[in-house]
Amino acid sequence: MSASTQSRISRVVVTPVAFGDPPLLNVVGVHQPWALRAIVELHTDNGLLGLGETYADESHLARLEAVASVLPGHDPYDLHGLHRLVAGVLGRETGGAGASFGGMLDVSSAVATVYSPFEVACLDLQAREAGRPVSDLLGGAVRDRVPFSGYLFYKWAGHPGLPDDDWGEALDPDGIVAQAKRMIDGWGFGSLKLKGGVFHPDDECAAIEALAEAFPGVPLRLDPNAGWTPEMSVRVAERLARVLEYLEDPTPGIEGMAYVAARTDVPLATNMCVIAFEHLAPAVAVNAVQIVLSDHHLWGGLRRSALLGGITETFGMGLSMHSNSHLGVSLAAMVHLAAASPHLTYACDTHYPWKTQDLIVPGVLSFEGGSVVVPTGPGLGVELDRDQLGVLHEQYLTCGVRRREDTVYMQSIDPSFRPNTARW
Amino acid sequence: MSASTQSRISRVVVTPVAFGDPPLLNVVGVHQPWALRAIVELHTDNGLLGLGETYADESHLARLEAVASVLPGHDPYDLHGLHRLVAGVLGRETGGAGASFGGMLDVSSAVATVYSPFEVACLDLQAREAGRPVSDLLGGAVRDRVPFSGYLFYKWAGHPGLPDDDWGEALDPDGIVAQAKRMIDGWGFGSLKLKGGVFHPDDECAAIEALAEAFPGVPLRLDPNAGWTPEMSVRVAERLARVLEYLEDPTPGIEGMAYVAARTDVPLATNMCVIAFEHLAPAVAVNAVQIVLSDHHLWGGLRRSALLGGITETFGMGLSMHSNSHLGVSLAAMVHLAAASPHLTYACDTHYPWKTQDLIVPGVLSFEGGSVVVPTGPGLGVELDRDQLGVLHEQYLTCGVRRREDTVYMQSIDPSFRPNTARW
Repeated sequence: MSASTQSRISRVVVTPVAFGDPPLLNVVGVHQPWALRAIVELHTDNGLLGLGETYADESHLARLEAVASVLPGHDPYDLHGLHRLVAGVLGRETGGAGASFGGMLDVSSAVATVYSPFEVACLDLQAREAGRPVSDLLGGAVRDRVPFSGYLFYKWAGHPGLPDDDWGEALDPDGIVAQAKRMIDGWGFGSLKLKGGVFHPDDECAAIEALAEAFPGVPLRLDPNAGWTPEMSVRVAERLARVLEYLEDPTPGIEGMAYVAARTDVPLATNMCVIAFEHLAPAVAVNAVQIVLSDHHLWGGLRRSALLGGITETFGMGLSMHSNSHLGVSLAAMVHLAAASPHLTYACDTHYPWKTQDLIVPGVLSFEGGSVVVPTGPGLGVELDRDQLGVLHEQYLTCGVRRREDTVYMQSIDPSFRPNTARW
Repeated sequence: MSASTQSRISRVVVTPVAFGDPPLLNVVGVHQPWALRAIVELHTDNGLLGLGETYADESHLARLEAVASVLPGHDPYDLHGLHRLVAGVLGRETGGAGASFGGMLDVSSAVATVYSPFEVACLDLQAREAGRPVSDLLGGAVRDRVPFSGYLFYKWAGHPGLPDDDWGEALDPDGIVAQAKRMIDGWGFGSLKLKGGVFHPDDECAAIEALAEAFPGVPLRLDPNAGWTPEMSVRVAERLARVLEYLEDPTPGIEGMAYVAARTDVPLATNMCVIAFEHLAPAVAVNAVQIVLSDHHLWGGLRRSALLGGITETFGMGLSMHSNSHLGVSLAAMVHLAAASPHLTYACDTHYPWKTQDLIVPGVLSFEGGSVVVPTGPGLGVELDRDQLGVLHEQYLTCGVRRREDTVYMQSIDPSFRPNTARW
C-alpha cells in the first residue's frame, strides 16, 4: 500500500489574476481590457500540488474562498464528498453562478462552477501521485494531440484610450479573413469559428462566405450567441447550409432552437440553452440541439464533463468544446479531457491565441498544426511560473476590473448600446 | 513519479468455475444444478494482481480467452484502448453476447460483456497501485455500507434426482413467506424481491400480499421477467399498487412497458428492455421505465455503469442494481460501484445468499443488517482463495454444464414446458 492512502489536502491557495484581453465584440458588448481568472492550488501533506483554473468574478472568488477555508483535511480522492462540501458551503446562495459569461448565460446554481477547479486540482493530485497523466484517470487518451479551431472575433483596432493591439481592426469580411489568415499561419488551425451576433446577420453571412472562399474546405462555424430570431436563424441556416460545419446558438432557448432545428439540416450546437444537466432532458425531448459544447468549468469538472460526453453519445448528439478567455492551466485540463473523450469529434474552441501572457512554465503546451500535444507527464503536466503568477496577480490588484461586464464596458463607450439577444 | 508509470499487464488467466445452484424457477425454466462463472486474473510486470468475474457460457469463455491472448503488454490505465481492443478481437462475431441470461435477454453485441471483467480487473490494479479502494477511483464512497434486498424465488425442494437442498420447497405464498423469513433472519435484509413469471399472476399477487402482511413496511418488488401481457401488467399494478416499491419488467419491450407505465403510478423497473446504452433514448422518448437496474457485467464495467447512473439521474429515472448468480469478486465490484453511486437509492439485488461456496478469502464481505460493508483496503479488497478456486474449477470440469440453459433443463424434467414471455 503506497503512502497515498494517507494524503490529505493541507493548504489551499486561490489567486485571482488578470491578463490583457483585446476588444473582442459579441452580442452583449465587448471584452474589457483585462480578463480575470483564478488559480486554485491544492497542497497536500505529502508535498504534492494540484492545480485548477476558473473564473474570477468577485462573487465567484468569494465562493472559492469559502470552500478553500474548509478544504484542509479533505481526501483528494473523495470527489463526491467534495461536491457535497461545495453544495453545503454555498447553501442557498447559489444564484447567478458567478461565472464570467458577460451576461450571456444564466445558471441556476453555482455548485458546478465552484466545484470544478477543485475537482480538476484533485484529479491533478491523484494523477501526480500515480505518476500518470490526468487523461489516464479519465480512461486513457484516445488521441495524442487535440485539434482546436481558430476563434475569430469582430474587434476594434484597440481599446479606446489605449494603444492599438497588434491584431488590428476586424469589422468586415476582409478584416475577418485577414484575422483568419493570421490564425491559420500562426497556429495551423484546420477549422474556424466566427463569434457573431455583432452585425446584421447578412453581414456576418458575408463574412462566413468570404472565409469559405478564402479557405476552401476548412470547416466553418458561426456563433451569434442567440442574437437572432428563430425565423432569421432559419434564413441564415439556409444561406450558409453548404459552408457551415455547425451553427452555434443562433437563437435563444430550447424551444427556439427546436424550431430552427426542425427547419434546417445544418446541425445546431449550443453552449447557451444546454449548459447544465437539467437542460439535457428537455432539449432531447424536442431535438433542440445536435451538438453540445462541453466546458469543464461550467459543467462541474472533468468527470462530469466525461459524463456529458457519454450522454451526448447515448442520445445521438455530437460533442464539441467551449472556451472562455483562459490561461494554461485550463488549456491543460481541456486537452486532457478532450484526449480522453472518444466521442469528441469536433475541434475544440479556445481563446488561447488571444492572450499575450501566461502563468505556466512554458514548453509543455504548444500548437502544432492547430493541435496541442497531450501532456504525458504526471498530472495535468503543467507547472506554475511563480514569477508570472505574481505579475498577473499584481495586474489583478491594480487593473480595477472585478467582474466580467461586457455590456457595462460597451455602454461606457457607446451609451446607446443595448444587449439584446434575438435582436435580428 | 511512481513505478506505476511502467506497469503493464504481463499475464492473463481466465478460470471457469462452477458452484452448486438451487432449482430456482423463472419464466424461462429453472436454474441448473451448477451455476457457471469465470474469474479473470490480470497480473502485471510489477507483481500486482487485478481480479474480475463474469459469465462463463462457453461462447463467452472463448471470447474472454481471445482477448486474454492479446492483452499482455497493455497498460491497465488505458481503458479506452482496452475497449477498442475487445471490439477489434470480437470483430463481427458479437451476436448473442454469450451472457448467462438463460435465454431471457438478447444483446446485439458482446463487446460490453467481454470488456467488463477486464475493466474491473484493470480498476482493481489501478486501485491497488494507488493503495486505494476501487470506490475511490469512482469518485469516492458516498456510503460505507451497501444495502441489498432479499431475493426470493419459487423453487422445488431440490433438483430432481439429487438430495433436497436445505431451503426446501417454495411454491405458494406460505413457502415464499417462510423463505423471506429465513432471508431476513439470516442476512437482515430490509427489502424483498420476488422472482415471478412462474405461476399465474393472481397466485404471485397473493404471494406479494402475504409478504406485505407478514413483513409490514418492508419494500417489496415483483419481477416476472416480462411474463405478462401489457393488460395483465396493468391489472397487477392496480392490485399491488399499495404494497410494491416497484414492478420489474412485467411485460416485454419498450413499447409494452410504456403502455403499462402510462396506466399506473407504480414505478416500472427494467433489466430486460433497457440493457444497453442504445436502449436508453427510445425508452426515455416514451417514458417506458422509471427505474433502470444497472449491472456492471452487462453494461461494460464499473465506469460505464457509473455513466448509466449519471444518465438515469439526468433523465429523471431511478437506479437500482441487477444480479445474476455470482461469487465474491462480483459482489465486491458491485459493492464498490454502489458505494460510489450517489444516485443509487434502492437496495441492490444479489443472488449471494443462494450459493454455498465461494473462492475469495473469507472475512471481507459479509452482510450486516442486509448491507455489505464497503471494503476499504486497496483495490476491490478481496483476494482469491487458491484452494477454493481449484475446487470450483474442478467442479466446472466435471459438472458437464457448459452454458446456462434454464429452458433445456426444465424441459428435461417437464417436456411440455414452453418458455413464453407475456404468457398471461
